[in-house]
Amino acid sequence: MRGGRALVLLSGGLDSATCLAIAKEAGYSCFALTISYGQRHLAEIEAARRVAQKIGVEEHKFYDLPLTEFGGSALTDRHIAVPTEMAAGIPVTYVPARNTLFLSVALAWSEVLEASHLFIGVNAVDYSGYPDCRPEFVDAFQRVANLGTKRGVEGNAVKIETPLIDLTKGEIIRLGQRLGLDYRITVSCYQADAEGHACGKCDSCRLRRQGFHDAGILDATRYQP
Amino acid sequence: MRGGRALVLLSGGLDSATCLAIAKEAGYSCFALTISYGQRHLAEIEAARRVAQKIGVEEHKFYDLPLTEFGGSALTDRHIAVPTEMAAGIPVTYVPARNTLFLSVALAWSEVLEASHLFIGVNAVDYSGYPDCRPEFVDAFQRVANLGTKRGVEGNAVKIETPLIDLTKGEIIRLGQRLGLDYRITVSCYQADAEGHACGKCDSCRLRRQGFHDAGILDATRYQP
Repeated sequence: MRGGRALVLLSGGLDSATCLAIAKEAGYSCFALTISYGQRHLAEIEAARRVAQKIGVEEHKFYDLPLTEFGGSALTDRHIAVPTEMAAGIPVTYVPARNTLFLSVALAWSEVLEASHLFIGVNAVDYSGYPDCRPEFVDAFQRVANLGTKRGVEGNAVKIETPLIDLTKGEIIRLGQRLGLDYRITVSCYQADAEGHACGKCDSCRLRRQGFHDAGILDATRYQP
Repeated sequence: MRGGRALVLLSGGLDSATCLAIAKEAGYSCFALTISYGQRHLAEIEAARRVAQKIGVEEHKFYDLPLTEFGGSALTDRHIAVPTEMAAGIPVTYVPARNTLFLSVALAWSEVLEASHLFIGVNAVDYSGYPDCRPEFVDAFQRVANLGTKRGVEGNAVKIETPLIDLTKGEIIRLGQRLGLDYRITVSCYQADAEGHACGKCDSCRLRRQGFHDAGILDATRYQP
């Protein structure tokens, strides 16, 4: 059982929900940060609310960061279609600098909270190939936190935790299940409908479905009819 | 004369205005980004508008990033007074992770613009002692840009330019004067009034006033009566 405060980036998807469950289990006093960046899948935001309530946090902050102003991604520009086939390379669902931005906002709040740890549910195994999900990116951002903040200069930089980074989707799901997480309240789909029903076709849906299959756990995700 | 696009972080203060003048002089097609983070000195935002118009940019984007939600600084929390004496260490005007956030937003837009260069007017000589103004911080963020973006992975990461980092305030002012910059339209004060009149007492005013003195150039800053 640890003490101290942890800030958890919570999107409402499967990975970040598991991250929050891990931080909670480890005994941290948890603060959740959900960033609304104009994503297609607003149902995720509602899912984040449910997850935080279910697991229990000290405070849940929703922060507006409109990336639709810049566009350049199928998730922030409605003129770019979400693909239903997985492709080689970095897909059009890549959002420019998204995790850099998310970590930066989290870094600001974590410094005010004097949080010791910052959890982000990035994964570099069963993922969409985004560059900002890789361990070398997280290491680089840790250095920014060490050098660019008052707490960092004082030797108390927040420690970025990526407990899922080397796990397969199946392993993540088994871990979450062991921690008592109900994945039915999470939404992973890039284009879920208003009620949170998943399309079943996008990268994120495919990875999630395969994960339940590999974990040998029934996929109770609510798909669109 | 260079080609290509440059994104310039433009606060409306003396340093960032000089940065824009440098980028323009170098021949870049310039895009200005002004971030409204709930600072006390909103007059700076108006100053940024004037500077961009005067120097000339392709586009000037104003981006809302409310750091007042986190507080923790004399610039974003009205319950903390702006000091009128310079002190040792990192002052209470430090804003948690501010330059990390600014560079992150700029990184996102620069990737969509396919800008080759990103200018930020940080200075580690005549400055308030903020950790995120130092060269080692900028180097760390460059690595984040290299590793955390699609363009970085492709070997085309935006290059962060800090032309002022080693200059004294006096040298910056002489350089800007040579580039034809009219510093009367800039606002550096941490607590300027609505018309942009400077207090003359905060760190930023002291450094600016000393800079004009050292440069041997008349300080035409409009001070509060």
